[in-house]
Amino acid sequence: MGSETIFQMLKLADIATLFNSLCGLLALILVQNGFTYLAPTLILAAAIADGIDGYLSRLYSGSEIGANLDSLADVISFGVAPVAIMYSFAGDEANYLLLAALCFYFLCGILRLARFNTSHQELPSFKGLPITAGGIVLSAYMLTGENYFNIGFATILTFVIGLLMISKITYMKARKPEILIPVGLLFGATILSYAVNISYTYFMATLLMGAMLLYMISPAIKRTV
Amino acid sequence: MGSETIFQMLKLADIATLFNSLCGLLALILVQNGFTYLAPTLILAAAIADGIDGYLSRLYSGSEIGANLDSLADVISFGVAPVAIMYSFAGDEANYLLLAALCFYFLCGILRLARFNTSHQELPSFKGLPITAGGIVLSAYMLTGENYFNIGFATILTFVIGLLMISKITYMKARKPEILIPVGLLFGATILSYAVNISYTYFMATLLMGAMLLYMISPAIKRTV
Repeated sequence: MGSETIFQMLKLADIATLFNSLCGLLALILVQNGFTYLAPTLILAAAIADGIDGYLSRLYSGSEIGANLDSLADVISFGVAPVAIMYSFAGDEANYLLLAALCFYFLCGILRLARFNTSHQELPSFKGLPITAGGIVLSAYMLTGENYFNIGFATILTFVIGLLMISKITYMKARKPEILIPVGLLFGATILSYAVNISYTYFMATLLMGAMLLYMISPAIKRTV
Repeated sequence: MGSETIFQMLKLADIATLFNSLCGLLALILVQNGFTYLAPTLILAAAIADGIDGYLSRLYSGSEIGANLDSLADVISFGVAPVAIMYSFAGDEANYLLLAALCFYFLCGILRLARFNTSHQELPSFKGLPITAGGIVLSAYMLTGENYFNIGFATILTFVIGLLMISKITYMKARKPEILIPVGLLFGATILSYAVNISYTYFMATLLMGAMLLYMISPAIKRTV
Protein backbone atom coordinates (compact mmCIF):
# COMPACT_ATOMS: atom_id res chain seq x y z
CA MET A 1 0.00 0.00 0.00
CA GLY A 2 3.09 2.20 0.06
CA SER A 3 2.72 4.19 -3.15
CA GLU A 4 -1.09 4.19 -3.43
CA THR A 5 -3.06 7.28 -2.54
CA ILE A 6 -5.78 6.76 0.04
CA PHE A 7 -8.48 6.91 -2.64
CA GLN A 8 -6.85 4.16 -4.69
CA MET A 9 -7.18 1.86 -1.68
CA LEU A 10 -10.98 2.19 -1.69
CA LYS A 11 -13.33 -0.43 -3.11
CA LEU A 12 -17.03 -0.22 -3.92
CA ALA A 13 -18.02 -1.48 -0.45
CA ASP A 14 -15.98 1.34 1.11
CA ILE A 15 -18.03 3.94 -0.75
CA ALA A 16 -21.13 2.50 0.95
CA THR A 17 -19.29 2.67 4.28
CA LEU A 18 -18.36 6.33 3.74
CA PHE A 19 -22.00 7.04 2.81
CA ASN A 20 -23.05 5.31 6.06
CA SER A 21 -20.71 7.54 8.11
CA LEU A 22 -21.81 10.67 6.27
CA CYS A 23 -25.47 9.89 7.06
CA GLY A 24 -24.54 9.68 10.73
CA LEU A 25 -22.65 12.98 10.64
CA LEU A 26 -25.42 14.80 8.78
CA ALA A 27 -28.02 13.38 11.19
CA LEU A 28 -26.07 15.03 14.01
CA ILE A 29 -25.93 18.36 12.21
CA LEU A 30 -29.60 18.16 11.21
CA VAL A 31 -30.81 17.54 14.73
CA GLN A 32 -28.87 20.61 15.89
CA ASN A 33 -30.88 22.56 13.34
CA GLY A 34 -34.27 21.27 14.42
CA PHE A 35 -34.85 18.45 11.92
CA THR A 36 -36.10 16.18 14.69
CA TYR A 37 -37.49 13.41 12.46
CA LEU A 38 -35.15 13.66 9.48
CA ALA A 39 -32.17 12.88 11.74
CA PRO A 40 -33.36 9.40 12.87
CA THR A 41 -34.55 8.73 9.31
CA LEU A 42 -30.95 9.26 8.15
CA ILE A 43 -29.81 6.66 10.70
CA LEU A 44 -32.07 4.16 8.95
CA ALA A 45 -30.47 5.18 5.63
CA ALA A 46 -27.06 4.60 7.26
CA ALA A 47 -28.24 1.11 8.25
CA ILE A 48 -29.18 0.33 4.64
CA ALA A 49 -25.73 1.56 3.50
CA ASP A 50 -24.17 -0.66 6.17
CA GLY A 51 -26.12 -3.64 4.84
CA ILE A 52 -25.05 -2.91 1.25
CA ASP A 53 -21.45 -2.51 2.39
CA GLY A 54 -21.55 -5.91 4.11
CA TYR A 55 -23.14 -7.54 1.07
CA LEU A 56 -20.58 -6.04 -1.34
CA SER A 57 -17.59 -6.98 0.80
CA ARG A 58 -18.82 -10.58 1.02
CA LEU A 59 -19.53 -10.69 -2.73
CA TYR A 60 -16.16 -9.22 -3.73
CA SER A 61 -13.32 -9.33 -1.24
CA GLY A 62 -13.14 -6.25 0.97
CA SER A 63 -10.34 -3.70 0.77
CA GLU A 64 -7.39 -3.61 3.14
CA ILE A 65 -8.92 -0.79 5.15
CA GLY A 66 -12.55 -1.96 4.74
CA ALA A 67 -13.13 -3.61 8.12
CA ASN A 68 -11.59 -0.68 10.00
CA LEU A 69 -13.56 1.86 8.04
CA ASP A 70 -16.75 -0.08 8.72
CA SER A 71 -16.43 0.02 12.49
CA LEU A 72 -15.47 3.73 12.43
CA ALA A 73 -18.66 4.44 10.45
CA ASP A 74 -20.77 2.25 12.76
CA VAL A 75 -19.65 3.98 15.94
CA ILE A 76 -20.73 7.29 14.43
CA SER A 77 -24.06 6.29 12.85
CA PHE A 78 -25.26 3.82 15.49
CA GLY A 79 -23.26 4.89 18.55
CA VAL A 80 -22.84 8.66 18.76
CA ALA A 81 -25.62 9.89 16.49
CA PRO A 82 -28.63 8.06 18.04
CA VAL A 83 -27.44 9.15 21.50
CA ALA A 84 -27.18 12.84 20.61
CA ILE A 85 -30.43 12.71 18.62
CA MET A 86 -32.30 11.00 21.48
CA TYR A 87 -31.11 13.59 24.01
CA SER A 88 -32.22 16.38 21.71
CA PHE A 89 -35.50 14.57 20.92
CA ALA A 90 -36.36 14.37 24.62
CA GLY A 91 -36.20 18.18 24.72
CA ASP A 92 -37.38 19.65 28.02
CA GLU A 93 -38.11 16.17 29.35
CA ALA A 94 -34.41 15.19 29.12
CA ASN A 95 -32.95 14.43 32.53
CA TYR A 96 -29.74 13.09 34.05
CA LEU A 97 -31.10 9.54 34.17
CA LEU A 98 -31.63 9.56 30.41
CA LEU A 99 -28.19 11.10 29.92
CA ALA A 100 -26.63 8.39 32.10
CA ALA A 101 -28.44 5.65 30.14
CA LEU A 102 -27.30 7.22 26.85
CA CYS A 103 -23.67 7.42 28.03
CA PHE A 104 -23.91 3.78 29.16
CA TYR A 105 -25.33 2.76 25.76
CA PHE A 106 -22.52 4.66 24.03
CA LEU A 107 -19.73 3.08 26.12
CA CYS A 108 -21.21 -0.40 25.65
CA GLY A 109 -21.45 0.22 21.92
CA ILE A 110 -17.84 1.31 21.54
CA LEU A 111 -16.65 -1.65 23.66
CA ARG A 112 -18.83 -4.03 21.61
CA LEU A 113 -17.27 -2.74 18.38
CA ALA A 114 -13.72 -3.00 19.70
CA ARG A 115 -14.36 -6.55 20.93
CA PHE A 116 -15.90 -7.54 17.59
CA ASN A 117 -12.91 -6.15 15.68
CA THR A 118 -10.46 -8.29 17.65
CA SER A 119 -12.51 -11.51 17.58
CA HIS A 120 -13.30 -14.10 14.95
CA GLN A 121 -15.60 -12.14 12.68
CA GLU A 122 -16.31 -15.11 10.42
CA LEU A 123 -18.42 -16.87 13.07
CA PRO A 124 -22.01 -17.57 11.93
CA SER A 125 -23.45 -15.57 14.85
CA PHE A 126 -22.76 -12.37 16.83
CA LYS A 127 -21.71 -12.21 20.47
CA GLY A 128 -23.94 -9.52 21.95
CA LEU A 129 -26.54 -7.38 20.16
CA PRO A 130 -24.85 -5.59 17.22
CA ILE A 131 -24.57 -1.81 17.62
CA THR A 132 -26.32 -1.41 14.25
CA ALA A 133 -29.42 -3.06 15.72
CA GLY A 134 -29.16 -0.86 18.82
CA GLY A 135 -29.00 2.34 16.76
CA ILE A 136 -31.93 1.21 14.61
CA VAL A 137 -34.13 0.47 17.64
CA LEU A 138 -33.49 3.91 19.15
CA SER A 139 -34.10 5.64 15.81
CA ALA A 140 -37.27 3.64 15.09
CA TYR A 141 -38.56 4.44 18.56
CA MET A 142 -38.17 8.17 17.97
CA LEU A 143 -39.82 7.84 14.55
CA THR A 144 -42.93 6.31 16.11
CA GLY A 145 -43.68 9.91 17.02
CA GLU A 146 -43.58 12.12 20.09
CA ASN A 147 -47.04 10.93 21.13
CA TYR A 148 -45.52 7.57 21.93
CA PHE A 149 -42.31 8.98 23.39
CA ASN A 150 -42.03 8.32 27.09
CA ILE A 151 -38.89 9.43 28.87
CA GLY A 152 -38.98 6.50 31.32
CA PHE A 153 -39.39 3.92 28.58
CA ALA A 154 -36.67 5.60 26.48
CA THR A 155 -34.27 5.46 29.44
CA ILE A 156 -34.95 1.79 30.17
CA LEU A 157 -34.82 0.81 26.48
CA THR A 158 -31.47 2.59 26.05
CA PHE A 159 -30.02 0.95 29.15
CA VAL A 160 -31.24 -2.55 28.17
CA ILE A 161 -29.79 -2.21 24.65
CA GLY A 162 -26.46 -1.23 26.23
CA LEU A 163 -26.50 -4.35 28.39
CA LEU A 164 -27.45 -6.61 25.46
CA MET A 165 -24.57 -5.19 23.39
CA ILE A 166 -21.88 -6.10 25.92
CA SER A 167 -23.56 -9.40 26.85
CA LYS A 168 -22.42 -12.77 25.52
CA ILE A 169 -25.88 -13.58 24.22
CA THR A 170 -25.73 -15.13 20.76
CA TYR A 171 -27.54 -13.23 18.02
CA MET A 172 -28.01 -14.70 14.57
CA LYS A 173 -26.72 -12.88 11.51
CA ALA A 174 -29.81 -12.10 9.46
CA ARG A 175 -28.55 -12.85 5.95
CA LYS A 176 -31.24 -15.13 4.52
CA PRO A 177 -33.17 -13.53 1.63
CA GLU A 178 -36.54 -14.44 3.22
CA ILE A 179 -35.61 -12.21 6.17
CA LEU A 180 -33.48 -9.58 4.43
CA ILE A 181 -35.95 -8.70 1.67
CA PRO A 182 -39.03 -7.89 3.81
CA VAL A 183 -36.90 -6.12 6.43
CA GLY A 184 -35.10 -4.14 3.70
CA LEU A 185 -38.46 -3.15 2.20
CA LEU A 186 -39.68 -2.03 5.62
CA PHE A 187 -36.57 0.16 6.02
CA GLY A 188 -37.02 1.62 2.55
CA ALA A 189 -40.73 2.29 3.10
CA THR A 190 -40.06 4.01 6.44
CA ILE A 191 -37.44 6.27 4.88
CA LEU A 192 -39.49 7.11 1.79
CA SER A 193 -42.64 7.76 3.83
CA TYR A 194 -40.84 10.70 5.44
CA ALA A 195 -40.93 12.47 2.06
CA VAL A 196 -44.66 11.75 1.69
CA ASN A 197 -46.34 12.20 5.04
CA ILE A 198 -44.83 12.02 8.51
CA SER A 199 -47.86 10.17 9.87
CA TYR A 200 -47.03 7.29 7.50
CA THR A 201 -43.52 7.34 8.97
CA TYR A 202 -44.96 6.97 12.49
CA PHE A 203 -46.85 3.89 11.31
CA MET A 204 -43.98 2.28 9.36
CA ALA A 205 -41.56 2.99 12.21
CA THR A 206 -43.91 1.24 14.64
CA LEU A 207 -43.76 -1.88 12.45
CA LEU A 208 -39.98 -1.56 12.20
CA MET A 209 -39.70 -1.12 15.95
CA GLY A 210 -41.77 -4.30 16.41
CA ALA A 211 -39.50 -6.25 14.07
CA MET A 212 -36.40 -4.98 15.85
CA LEU A 213 -37.74 -5.74 19.32
CA LEU A 214 -38.46 -9.27 18.06
CA TYR A 215 -34.79 -9.51 16.99
CA MET A 216 -33.71 -8.19 20.39
CA ILE A 217 -35.57 -10.96 22.22
CA SER A 218 -34.91 -13.60 19.53
CA PRO A 219 -32.22 -15.45 21.56
CA ALA A 220 -34.78 -15.99 24.35
CA ILE A 221 -37.40 -17.23 21.85
CA LYS A 222 -34.88 -19.61 20.30
CA ARG A 223 -34.16 -21.15 23.68
CA THR A 224 -37.78 -21.71 24.63
CA VAL A 225 -39.01 -22.97 21.25
CA MET B 1 -10.57 -13.90 25.50
CA GLY B 2 -13.43 -16.43 25.35
CA SER B 3 -14.61 -16.48 28.96
CA GLU B 4 -13.68 -12.93 29.97
CA THR B 5 -16.35 -10.27 30.29
CA ILE B 6 -15.76 -7.15 28.24
CA PHE B 7 -14.73 -5.21 31.35
CA GLN B 8 -12.07 -7.77 32.31
CA MET B 9 -10.41 -7.12 28.95
CA LEU B 10 -9.84 -3.45 29.80
CA LYS B 11 -6.52 -2.03 30.96
CA LEU B 12 -5.71 1.35 32.52
CA ALA B 13 -4.97 2.91 29.12
CA ASP B 14 -8.44 1.86 27.92
CA ILE B 15 -10.08 3.82 30.73
CA ALA B 16 -8.31 6.94 29.40
CA THR B 17 -9.57 6.03 25.91
CA LEU B 18 -13.15 5.67 27.14
CA PHE B 19 -12.81 9.04 28.91
CA ASN B 20 -11.57 10.52 25.62
CA SER B 21 -14.63 9.20 23.75
CA LEU B 22 -17.00 10.35 26.48
CA CYS B 23 -15.56 13.90 26.28
CA GLY B 24 -16.31 13.86 22.55
CA LEU B 25 -19.87 12.64 23.08
CA LEU B 26 -20.59 15.16 25.84
CA ALA B 27 -19.13 17.97 23.71
CA LEU B 28 -21.70 17.10 21.05
CA ILE B 29 -24.55 17.12 23.54
CA LEU B 30 -23.30 20.34 25.17
CA VAL B 31 -23.13 22.25 21.91
CA GLN B 32 -26.74 21.23 21.19
CA ASN B 33 -27.63 22.87 24.47
CA GLY B 34 -25.84 26.13 23.81
CA PHE B 35 -22.52 25.57 25.59
CA THR B 36 -20.61 27.04 22.67
CA TYR B 37 -17.22 27.31 24.38
CA LEU B 38 -17.42 24.41 26.81
CA ALA B 39 -17.80 21.97 23.89
CA PRO B 40 -14.44 22.76 22.20
CA THR B 41 -12.82 22.90 25.65
CA LEU B 42 -13.93 19.29 26.17
CA ILE B 43 -12.22 18.35 22.90
CA LEU B 44 -8.96 19.63 24.39
CA ALA B 45 -9.65 17.47 27.47
CA ALA B 46 -10.21 14.53 25.10
CA ALA B 47 -6.81 15.26 23.54
CA ILE B 48 -5.12 15.12 26.96
CA ALA B 49 -6.87 11.78 27.66
CA ASP B 50 -5.65 10.56 24.26
CA GLY B 51 -2.09 11.54 25.19
CA ILE B 52 -2.32 9.77 28.56
CA ASP B 53 -3.77 6.70 26.86
CA GLY B 54 -0.85 6.60 24.41
CA TYR B 55 1.69 7.06 27.22
CA LEU B 56 0.14 4.30 29.36
CA SER B 57 -0.09 1.82 26.49
CA ARG B 58 3.60 2.39 25.65
CA LEU B 59 4.59 2.11 29.32
CA TYR B 60 2.60 -1.07 29.96
CA SER B 61 1.57 -3.18 27.01
CA GLY B 62 -1.85 -2.24 25.64
CA SER B 63 -4.88 -4.52 25.90
CA GLU B 64 -6.10 -6.72 23.06
CA ILE B 65 -8.85 -4.27 22.16
CA GLY B 66 -6.80 -1.12 22.98
CA ALA B 67 -5.77 -0.03 19.49
CA ASN B 68 -9.27 -0.50 18.12
CA LEU B 69 -10.86 1.34 20.99
CA ASP B 70 -8.40 4.19 20.50
CA SER B 71 -9.33 4.85 16.89
CA LEU B 72 -13.05 4.58 17.67
CA ALA B 73 -12.61 7.25 20.35
CA ASP B 74 -10.50 9.44 18.05
CA VAL B 75 -13.03 9.46 15.23
CA ILE B 76 -15.63 10.73 17.70
CA SER B 77 -13.62 13.33 19.61
CA PHE B 78 -11.50 14.66 16.73
CA GLY B 79 -13.59 13.71 13.70
CA VAL B 80 -17.32 14.04 14.33
CA ALA B 81 -17.40 16.36 17.35
CA PRO B 82 -15.26 19.27 16.03
CA VAL B 83 -17.26 19.19 12.77
CA ALA B 84 -20.66 19.38 14.47
CA ILE B 85 -19.39 21.98 16.97
CA MET B 86 -17.91 24.14 14.20
CA TYR B 87 -21.15 24.11 12.20
CA SER B 88 -23.09 25.09 15.28
CA PHE B 89 -20.46 27.70 16.25
CA ALA B 90 -20.80 29.40 12.86
CA GLY B 91 -24.49 29.95 13.64
CA ASP B 92 -26.27 32.14 11.10
CA GLU B 93 -23.04 32.53 9.15
CA ALA B 94 -22.91 28.78 8.40
CA ASN B 95 -23.21 28.08 4.67
CA TYR B 96 -22.97 25.14 2.28
CA LEU B 97 -19.29 25.83 1.58
CA LEU B 98 -18.45 25.43 5.26
CA LEU B 99 -20.63 22.30 5.41
CA ALA B 100 -18.82 20.87 2.37
CA ALA B 101 -15.41 21.61 3.91
CA LEU B 102 -16.51 20.01 7.20
CA CYS B 103 -17.78 16.87 5.41
CA PHE B 104 -14.50 16.73 3.50
CA TYR B 105 -12.51 17.06 6.74
CA PHE B 106 -14.62 14.30 8.29
CA LEU B 107 -14.18 11.88 5.38
CA CYS B 108 -10.43 12.55 5.25
CA GLY B 109 -10.23 11.97 9.00
CA ILE B 110 -12.01 8.63 8.91
CA LEU B 111 -9.88 7.49 5.93
CA ARG B 112 -6.73 8.63 7.74
CA LEU B 113 -7.66 6.59 10.81
CA ALA B 114 -8.50 3.48 8.78
CA ARG B 115 -5.20 3.76 6.88
CA PHE B 116 -3.26 4.22 10.11
CA ASN B 117 -4.90 1.15 11.66
CA THR B 118 -3.81 -1.07 8.78
CA SER B 119 -0.27 0.27 8.46
CA HIS B 120 2.91 -0.07 10.49
CA GLN B 121 2.03 1.91 13.57
CA GLU B 122 5.45 1.50 15.13
CA LEU B 123 7.09 3.85 12.62
CA PRO B 124 8.83 6.87 14.23
CA SER B 125 6.67 9.31 12.23
CA PHE B 126 3.08 9.71 11.00
CA LYS B 127 1.96 9.64 7.37
CA GLY B 128 -0.38 12.59 7.06
CA LEU B 129 -1.46 15.02 9.80
CA PRO B 130 -2.97 13.02 12.70
CA ILE B 131 -6.70 13.53 13.18
CA THR B 132 -6.03 14.44 16.82
CA ALA B 133 -4.04 17.47 15.64
CA GLY B 134 -6.82 18.37 13.20
CA GLY B 135 -9.48 18.29 15.90
CA ILE B 136 -7.30 20.34 18.25
CA VAL B 137 -6.68 23.06 15.63
CA LEU B 138 -10.41 23.43 14.91
CA SER B 139 -11.26 23.51 18.63
CA ALA B 140 -8.49 25.98 19.46
CA TYR B 141 -9.63 28.22 16.60
CA MET B 142 -13.16 28.37 18.01
CA LEU B 143 -11.79 29.05 21.49
CA THR B 144 -9.91 32.12 20.26
CA GLY B 145 -13.37 33.72 20.42
CA GLU B 146 -16.10 34.76 18.05
CA ASN B 147 -14.38 38.11 17.44
CA TYR B 148 -11.67 36.25 15.55
CA PHE B 149 -14.05 33.81 13.89
CA ASN B 150 -14.22 34.32 10.15
CA ILE B 151 -16.34 31.96 8.11
CA GLY B 152 -14.03 32.10 5.08
CA PHE B 153 -10.92 31.36 7.14
CA ALA B 154 -12.74 28.56 9.00
CA THR B 155 -13.75 26.97 5.67
CA ILE B 156 -10.24 27.13 4.22
CA LEU B 157 -8.61 25.92 7.46
CA THR B 158 -10.99 22.95 7.64
CA PHE B 159 -10.37 22.05 4.02
CA VAL B 160 -6.58 22.33 4.33
CA ILE B 161 -6.52 20.15 7.46
CA GLY B 162 -8.54 17.54 5.55
CA LEU B 163 -5.98 17.56 2.73
CA LEU B 164 -3.04 17.32 5.15
CA MET B 165 -4.63 14.33 6.89
CA ILE B 166 -4.90 12.22 3.73
CA SER B 167 -1.56 13.46 2.38
CA LYS B 168 1.65 11.44 2.57
CA ILE B 169 3.48 14.27 4.30
CA THR B 170 5.61 13.00 7.18
CA TYR B 171 4.76 14.40 10.60
CA MET B 172 6.94 13.75 13.61
CA LYS B 173 5.53 12.08 16.71
CA ALA B 174 5.89 14.67 19.46
CA ARG B 175 7.00 12.48 22.34
CA LYS B 176 10.06 14.29 23.67
CA PRO B 177 9.56 15.69 27.19
CA GLU B 178 10.91 19.15 26.15
CA ILE B 179 7.98 19.39 23.72
CA LEU B 180 5.34 17.40 25.58
CA ILE B 181 5.62 19.22 28.90
CA PRO B 182 5.13 22.83 27.68
CA VAL B 183 2.42 21.76 25.21
CA GLY B 184 0.68 19.74 27.92
CA LEU B 185 0.80 22.73 30.26
CA LEU B 186 -0.66 24.95 27.54
CA PHE B 187 -3.53 22.49 27.08
CA GLY B 188 -4.15 22.32 30.81
CA ALA B 189 -4.04 26.10 31.20
CA THR B 190 -6.47 26.60 28.31
CA ILE B 191 -8.94 24.13 29.81
CA LEU B 192 -8.65 25.48 33.36
CA SER B 193 -8.94 29.10 32.23
CA TYR B 194 -12.49 28.29 31.06
CA ALA B 195 -13.49 27.89 34.70
CA VAL B 196 -11.88 31.22 35.62
CA ASN B 197 -12.57 33.74 32.89
CA ILE B 198 -13.44 33.11 29.25
CA SER B 199 -11.23 35.99 28.10
CA TYR B 200 -8.21 34.11 29.49
CA THR B 201 -9.37 31.13 27.41
CA TYR B 202 -9.37 33.29 24.26
CA PHE B 203 -5.76 34.25 25.00
CA MET B 204 -4.52 30.75 25.89
CA ALA B 205 -6.32 29.27 22.88
CA THR B 206 -4.58 31.78 20.62
CA LEU B 207 -1.21 30.54 21.90
CA LEU B 208 -2.32 26.95 21.47
CA MET B 209 -3.56 27.68 17.95
CA GLY B 210 -0.15 29.20 17.14
CA ALA B 211 1.66 26.10 18.44
CA MET B 212 -0.64 23.80 16.46
CA LEU B 213 -0.27 25.79 13.24
CA LEU B 214 3.49 25.52 13.70
CA TYR B 215 3.11 21.73 13.93
CA MET B 216 0.91 21.77 10.82
CA ILE B 217 3.61 23.49 8.78
CA SER B 218 6.52 21.74 10.53
CA PRO B 219 7.26 19.35 7.61
CA ALA B 220 7.82 22.39 5.35
CA ILE B 221 10.08 24.06 7.92
CA LYS B 222 12.07 20.82 8.31
CA ARG B 223 12.69 20.72 4.57
CA THR B 224 13.85 24.29 4.25
CA VAL B 225 16.00 24.43 7.39
